[in-house]
Amino acid sequence: MGYLISFEGGEGSGKSTVLKKLADYLSQQGHKVVCTREPGGIEIAEQIRNIILDKKNVKMDAKTEALLYAAARRQHLVEKVIPALEKGKIVLCDRYLDSSLTYQGYARGLGIEEILSINQFAIDGYMPHLTLFLDVPPEVGLTRIQKDDEREVNRLDLESMDFHRKVREGYYQLLERFPERIKKINAEHDIETVFKEVLSAVLNYIK
Amino acid sequence: MGYLISFEGGEGSGKSTVLKKLADYLSQQGHKVVCTREPGGIEIAEQIRNIILDKKNVKMDAKTEALLYAAARRQHLVEKVIPALEKGKIVLCDRYLDSSLTYQGYARGLGIEEILSINQFAIDGYMPHLTLFLDVPPEVGLTRIQKDDEREVNRLDLESMDFHRKVREGYYQLLERFPERIKKINAEHDIETVFKEVLSAVLNYIK
Repeated sequence: MGYLISFEGGEGSGKSTVLKKLADYLSQQGHKVVCTREPGGIEIAEQIRNIILDKKNVKMDAKTEALLYAAARRQHLVEKVIPALEKGKIVLCDRYLDSSLTYQGYARGLGIEEILSINQFAIDGYMPHLTLFLDVPPEVGLTRIQKDDEREVNRLDLESMDFHRKVREGYYQLLERFPERIKKINAEHDIETVFKEVLSAVLNYIK
Repeated sequence: MGYLISFEGGEGSGKSTVLKKLADYLSQQGHKVVCTREPGGIEIAEQIRNIILDKKNVKMDAKTEALLYAAARRQHLVEKVIPALEKGKIVLCDRYLDSSLTYQGYARGLGIEEILSINQFAIDGYMPHLTLFLDVPPEVGLTRIQKDDEREVNRLDLESMDFHRKVREGYYQLLERFPERIKKINAEHDIETVFKEVLSAVLNYIK
């Protein structure tokens, strides 16, 4: 069995960049690495995602949305993540379970425990072995995004600052709940410093 | 607040026919009645249903499917059932929670408790006030369907006899678990007899 490592953090925390660097490093060391993010090109998960993101679906209830995210997660897990783990690969996943817990459970107010419960059904014990939470104050993260011309602004970037603060608070609650699994990384530092800290945590884990 | 009455049973149990007769009767008595079945014309729920039924989606995992059913149920509940209940209407729903519990939880083997858990998240306390389980041996139900030229054969009709027997077993388990809520009706009798028994249960309930 391989390793499932998830990357978490608010908008502009630098997750994707660090994930890519880590993948390059681990590949050079001879590990087999899969980089992914939900829905990850899985046809059924893409169809589900399209319903969630369809701007016409203004009547979408928050719980419907949470169930749809869990369904897309399930299918991505079954079709892409589990087969890779079974081949002994290291799966690096940009956002996973904890994003639902903080964005929907905490920031949208549906309850972390409730969202955890439906996600436990969906992930069937496939908790991440290690989760890297790249922590930046929302003001810093959002400023980074605004400076990044190549990055397309998404729906979540446009939420209120209060919402982004809640997302961060939610991650802090998850840190307390899963202290063994989640490692907080100070992502205000420059990318090289952040990467070193991430790498150290990962190597400490996979040995 | 109105009443939420669900109709359950295997294929060919006569649910839809009895539901329609009950709706006519109650309407004539001056009740405001809404007849529905999931996804019930709710746009988001229809989109979800399309993913479930799309024949191209052969890789659909059973848990993904269960989460999608729960999502469609949620949206139908929020947009159609709850508003009707709040207006004091009697909502007659052809299949609801218990269909997921027996078809997916029991017959497909995902576990009644697990399916109940994700559905409790979806229905948010909106359990049916009364559930009429129209019970027929699967052999009888399926023979009825074959004789009914107008009824289009669906995917579930084509499952093995063993599957249909399990569905019935699942309903019997639910009867034990929810003895207050679920009323078993012998649906081998002719339609008039079945209807009388259903009506008696309903009038006993709504007074």
